Amino acid sequence: MMEDSAYIIDTLFTLFAMTLIIFMVPGFAMLEAGLVRTKNVTTVLTVNVMIYAVASMAFLLFGYSIAFGGFGSESMSKWAAFLFQMAFVGKVINIMSGGVSERVRLTPLAIFTVIMGGLIYPLIVNVSWGSDFLKDTFLDLSMYDLAGSTVIHSTGGWALLAAILIIGPRYKRYVNGKIRVIPASNIPLVVLGALLLWIGWFGFNGGSVGSISSKENADAVALTIMNTNTAGLAGAIITSILIWVKYKKQDITMILNGGLGGLVAITAGPDLYDIYTPILIGAIGGILVVFAVPFFDKLRLDDPVGALSVHLVNGIWGTLAVGIFASDGKDITLFGQIKGILVIGVFAFVVSYSVIYLINKFLPFRADDDDQLQGLDYEECGVESYPEFVRN
Amino acid sequence: MMEDSAYIIDTLFTLFAMTLIIFMVPGFAMLEAGLVRTKNVTTVLTVNVMIYAVASMAFLLFGYSIAFGGFGSESMSKWAAFLFQMAFVGKVINIMSGGVSERVRLTPLAIFTVIMGGLIYPLIVNVSWGSDFLKDTFLDLSMYDLAGSTVIHSTGGWALLAAILIIGPRYKRYVNGKIRVIPASNIPLVVLGALLLWIGWFGFNGGSVGSISSKENADAVALTIMNTNTAGLAGAIITSILIWVKYKKQDITMILNGGLGGLVAITAGPDLYDIYTPILIGAIGGILVVFAVPFFDKLRLDDPVGALSVHLVNGIWGTLAVGIFASDGKDITLFGQIKGILVIGVFAFVVSYSVIYLINKFLPFRADDDDQLQGLDYEECGVESYPEFVRN
Amino acid sequence: MMEDSAYIIDTLFTLFAMTLIIFMVPGFAMLEAGLVRTKNVTTVLTVNVMIYAVASMAFLLFGYSIAFGGFGSESMSKWAAFLFQMAFVGKVINIMSGGVSERVRLTPLAIFTVIMGGLIYPLIVNVSWGSDFLKDTFLDLSMYDLAGSTVIHSTGGWALLAAILIIGPRYKRYVNGKIRVIPASNIPLVVLGALLLWIGWFGFNGGSVGSISSKENADAVALTIMNTNTAGLAGAIITSILIWVKYKKQDITMILNGGLGGLVAITAGPDLYDIYTPILIGAIGGILVVFAVPFFDKLRLDDPVGALSVHLVNGIWGTLAVGIFASDGKDITLFGQIKGILVIGVFAFVVSYSVIYLINKFLPFRADDDDQLQGLDYEECGVESYPEFVRN
Repeated sequence: MMEDSAYIIDTLFTLFAMTLIIFMVPGFAMLEAGLVRTKNVTTVLTVNVMIYAVASMAFLLFGYSIAFGGFGSESMSKWAAFLFQMAFVGKVINIMSGGVSERVRLTPLAIFTVIMGGLIYPLIVNVSWGSDFLKDTFLDLSMYDLAGSTVIHSTGGWALLAAILIIGPRYKRYVNGKIRVIPASNIPLVVLGALLLWIGWFGFNGGSVGSISSKENADAVALTIMNTNTAGLAGAIITSILIWVKYKKQDITMILNGGLGGLVAITAGPDLYDIYTPILIGAIGGILVVFAVPFFDKLRLDDPVGALSVHLVNGIWGTLAVGIFASDGKDITLFGQIKGILVIGVFAFVVSYSVIYLINKFLPFRADDDDQLQGLDYEECGVESYPEFVRN
Repeated sequence: MMEDSAYIIDTLFTLFAMTLIIFMVPGFAMLEAGLVRTKNVTTVLTVNVMIYAVASMAFLLFGYSIAFGGFGSESMSKWAAFLFQMAFVGKVINIMSGGVSERVRLTPLAIFTVIMGGLIYPLIVNVSWGSDFLKDTFLDLSMYDLAGSTVIHSTGGWALLAAILIIGPRYKRYVNGKIRVIPASNIPLVVLGALLLWIGWFGFNGGSVGSISSKENADAVALTIMNTNTAGLAGAIITSILIWVKYKKQDITMILNGGLGGLVAITAGPDLYDIYTPILIGAIGGILVVFAVPFFDKLRLDDPVGALSVHLVNGIWGTLAVGIFASDGKDITLFGQIKGILVIGVFAFVVSYSVIYLINKFLPFRADDDDQLQGLDYEECGVESYPEFVRN
Repeated sequence: MMEDSAYIIDTLFTLFAMTLIIFMVPGFAMLEAGLVRTKNVTTVLTVNVMIYAVASMAFLLFGYSIAFGGFGSESMSKWAAFLFQMAFVGKVINIMSGGVSERVRLTPLAIFTVIMGGLIYPLIVNVSWGSDFLKDTFLDLSMYDLAGSTVIHSTGGWALLAAILIIGPRYKRYVNGKIRVIPASNIPLVVLGALLLWIGWFGFNGGSVGSISSKENADAVALTIMNTNTAGLAGAIITSILIWVKYKKQDITMILNGGLGGLVAITAGPDLYDIYTPILIGAIGGILVVFAVPFFDKLRLDDPVGALSVHLVNGIWGTLAVGIFASDGKDITLFGQIKGILVIGVFAFVVSYSVIYLINKFLPFRADDDDQLQGLDYEECGVESYPEFVRN
């Protein structure tokens, strides 16, 4: 293609991909609003809108420059390149905030959002996809992670683990050694949210190819979206089968989490596989979700939306999968993938833990037991989610 | 355009169109979740997610090859061409499953989904849009059906008719010769779902032009989307007027079904008409819905979402309309359109009936009366849709 | 770019932008369905679907020709150019109808929709963006209004002001000199709707650049979308801070209205600013919403969705902002902006008032007190929004 045409088409393509990712904002919001109890729905929705606003603004004001060394792109409009990266940043914090739903307070979370979106995440992007200011020193990450199994999903998952350790489980979630099941309050919203995330993933992974303006790139983008979808399908199907074999019933929230697990798992290398390998990668992703959800509950790590299982576990699995199925022995090696997982994992967990710990000293993240009992919507928001419906 | 540019732009265009069609997955899910009673909402949502996952996977593994003789496309990325066709397949089964809501069980439906998505529908596509392995024998379908008034909508409708005949009406739907009205449980979801379907239709019909990379094709795509939208508008408006004249009230679920009827009716030939003909085609589509809904109820064909009226009746009407309004006497004739309707109709109905009948021998499709009374969510899913809201 | 390529890419770009705008149809519908009481939800949803259908059809049949002098475009498919403009028209009436929710009747509103969508709005477009048949007489509007801070948002706001003056407040909204707070019935729908509007805005403003087929235009489109988003972020953040300082709580409906206020404010000139100015423009937009909402209540102008504050006030502010921040002294002047605001404001208000007044003589817009008490859904629609849920 002629140079100008490539610039124009890649700008259009990136704006299209960015828009799909923005559909993940209502996606996460609806998914989480459906999964929590009605007394916490307004708070969870406020958190989601706050994250989009605050993280994006922090990324505009300083995060993007930290990650990429300033605004600029030769191959497409630099504003489209910014928008695409900006669409990512909130997701990391969505993953973290979702898992501490029903007991996390808004103000400390907003402060953490500024630091994560403006500093921690940009530093991780810098060494993974960005200008990598540490490249000439000791840290040259050779990990392959196209759209962020590690950079986005594990990072969010590690921050969530740190947050759960500090904030603790929901009030009376674990009583007398037993796990109390807390049902989702609105299943249609769960399904709507998960499907919007699914569609957003096409933009997330497809757009991460970075260009569609050559035949090879057009094929890479289409293959990436196809493989992304296939892994999600496989994750949902295998989860459905496992659940049915065990309970003779279907559990739609688990099926959707299995599908999302498959999507996370494929995210590191959707452009690298043939069209059948994603079935295996996604299916393993679904299986991991099915076993990880009760496992984290056994560890008393209370995660109302299954984010540790979907994002942390499958973020790691997806990054490893690249080393297993797409290792070419040179640039991509299993060792390089493991190194990336460890370096970013340790950094994300230690820094997130420290920041949350510090903020927590001054502004406690955890709502006290009375507020949790009454529902966070009362104290944090003063706005009921469904004021006219009589509740059990 | 230069060859490479066409390949790139058609790939981008097809990925855009495909994405719009995928919005029909939450579209159908929300529409049906809103139309059924709360005690069946989780099941209906699970059915919708299952259909997307299972039908798409079956199409990937063997259906696509049956329809098109293998992966391949000269004019755009073959993966984009696959994704576009894959986005269609679930719709046929959505049409069928929606109409047997509130009494159909999950497991037999999943088995039917594999056979419909992997075999029956691909065979229909093969003789209509695909490599047509029967072309040199007796069957050379000359029907014009751009985006599937017959191939998608009537096919789904015939399968639904077969399913209703075998499964029967909902428990106590028809009592002592009277029709019991069962109100939709969540009108906002109905509206959201119908509007997402409407938007998806732009991708469905627009993308079916197959290319945007010439001036002529760019015009054809834009005209197709314009005419699609116009027919939907006309269907909604005429339905609204008819309802108002009769009842002096508005009925939003009928208005939306009238709009969807118009959209189905235009689907066979949105690229063939001037910009005013779709008003007539869509308006007739809406009128047909208004009269068909009570007609099917009189025949005791219980269809909680009006799918027979929207998809079967208007699928036939839309295919005929091409023969009436766009016949050019050579390739397109009214006779050819009727032949296509009959051949595909007989095939779709007979094969669907046989397959459902066979599955039904081993795994009954129909939930027994007690389960229907309690709601399918209890026995099939064990997950309540709105557990905190007190219900009448 | 070669001429054909530009035609093709601009057609694709415009269809993409148009589709995003159509997401504002469910956007407005869900936002308003969430903000009103459950007894009026079906009516509000019916209004939204009616507006899309009726306004678009009126625009197709005569409005578009009034605005632009007939179908035609050199630079892209004329059908795409039509679709993009058609996607705008309903918005003006959505703004008006939302603000008279919970007491406005359907039939007179449908008649007003025909006149607004087919005549009043097209005349405003004609002198602002269209063929301007008054140009050679006294009226040569030199206002800069890229995507309609004045043409869309103020126009809708003036029509709403006229409607509120004629229709009056909701029954028992203002009792004994006190303002009765009426809480929103479904917060998840409010958030979903607002976020769909947000995404639609990318198409609204981005598409209004009119072309993406040169490097300069590609940059202008991307910058426009970036600035649009930034202003929305700033509006939401400043509103959140103001609300928190005053009440020590968060109010998600105000935060979203603040964000929408920022989006309206940037709409006149998102292509004119550097990337930081929108922060200021959007923040002022949010502040204006926070102060305008109680101000209009003091004036007893009852507006259940805050449309006067979001659309009228910020439509004016955004148009002024172009004159303040982007005046180049020649084509764009503060004087020209003020002149545009006044001319269109007076025209929109006087004509809307007259038309509503006239229709109101024969078909009263206002539902009587008994119907309001019972809820409009009973008398206007006969369809309950959530029939199974027990209400307070």
